[in-house]
Amino acid sequence: MPPDPSRRSERSRQAILTAAVDLLREVGYRKLTIEAIAARAGVGKQTIYRWWPSKGAVVLDGFLAAVNEDPDDLSLPDTGDVAADLRGVVRAIVAELADPDLSGVSRALMIEMQEDVELADTARDRILAPQMRAIADRLRAAQDAGQLRADLDLAVAVELLVGPLYHRWLLRTAPLTEAYADTVTDLALRALGPQPART
Amino acid sequence: MPPDPSRRSERSRQAILTAAVDLLREVGYRKLTIEAIAARAGVGKQTIYRWWPSKGAVVLDGFLAAVNEDPDDLSLPDTGDVAADLRGVVRAIVAELADPDLSGVSRALMIEMQEDVELADTARDRILAPQMRAIADRLRAAQDAGQLRADLDLAVAVELLVGPLYHRWLLRTAPLTEAYADTVTDLALRALGPQPART
Repeated sequence: MPPDPSRRSERSRQAILTAAVDLLREVGYRKLTIEAIAARAGVGKQTIYRWWPSKGAVVLDGFLAAVNEDPDDLSLPDTGDVAADLRGVVRAIVAELADPDLSGVSRALMIEMQEDVELADTARDRILAPQMRAIADRLRAAQDAGQLRADLDLAVAVELLVGPLYHRWLLRTAPLTEAYADTVTDLALRALGPQPART
Repeated sequence: MPPDPSRRSERSRQAILTAAVDLLREVGYRKLTIEAIAARAGVGKQTIYRWWPSKGAVVLDGFLAAVNEDPDDLSLPDTGDVAADLRGVVRAIVAELADPDLSGVSRALMIEMQEDVELADTARDRILAPQMRAIADRLRAAQDAGQLRADLDLAVAVELLVGPLYHRWLLRTAPLTEAYADTVTDLALRALGPQPART
């Protein structure tokens, strides 16, 4: 029986993404080339260019394969305790940014997003927007329960919570620690919490 | 009289920085080369390599020359109204990030900071830390005036204020507008403001 061509191309696709992520870890983004990815994956350069327009696009799919989560399936736990739930998600983001296996891929994506606006749009739609939507949904539930102010702009509220994490990580202002994550969560919650009752 | 060599090398230095910033604007960071900077500035490649170890280092000095401010001299106005003063600085940061003449240089720096940790340290010390210190000083004055909580970690407070700006700009989550700047300032101030008196 001849090999199934669609199965063979899925195998090549996986080999290419794995090679890209592994090489990125080994040599850094600057030195990553399509040639090296092709050689490591055992495919021709043309195979890569048939599926992806640039090394940035390969890295984006490599990131999605590495995190291995379905963006449409993201949602935060809702224990009823909004402070605990947000503390959990903020700590998880910090852990993901600090993860040596993932951080190189994430930084490579950030690099590409600065110059390739089309890739940035795709990264926003496929990676960032689902994460931010999941946090906004949890904030909305807390609003409905009267735990947060009713007049919040939820998109801004989410960036108040996660912006300081990315700021410290991308601008390398100081180590990104769990203590920082907790302080940011506590401060943000104070901003988002219900208005103090006037007496 | 022979030309003054130190004056001549200062002229070359300025020509190199101007060429780097201009070329960055024209071709983007990816296509920027030391060769092209040297050709535009009318100097040899070796002159550039004598003074700077990498194109990232040239861009860092180009940024400092372009913003034309003395980092040790930064301070925020103190009108006594902390909300107005912070609103002013946050709007100024947004205007600087949105400035087409500066944003290419800033994004190039961000790109280099992801892979070149030594350059990132220099950028932090020479560019970011003075800006953050100036904001922290203004927050401390407001604390002393009883306008902000006494128990704040000022380094985190500054990142709560500026993190959401860089998040939106670097991750391109949505347009970076003055309205966003104001909403972020208002939310952050709510987090930093004095604890509601218990009655």
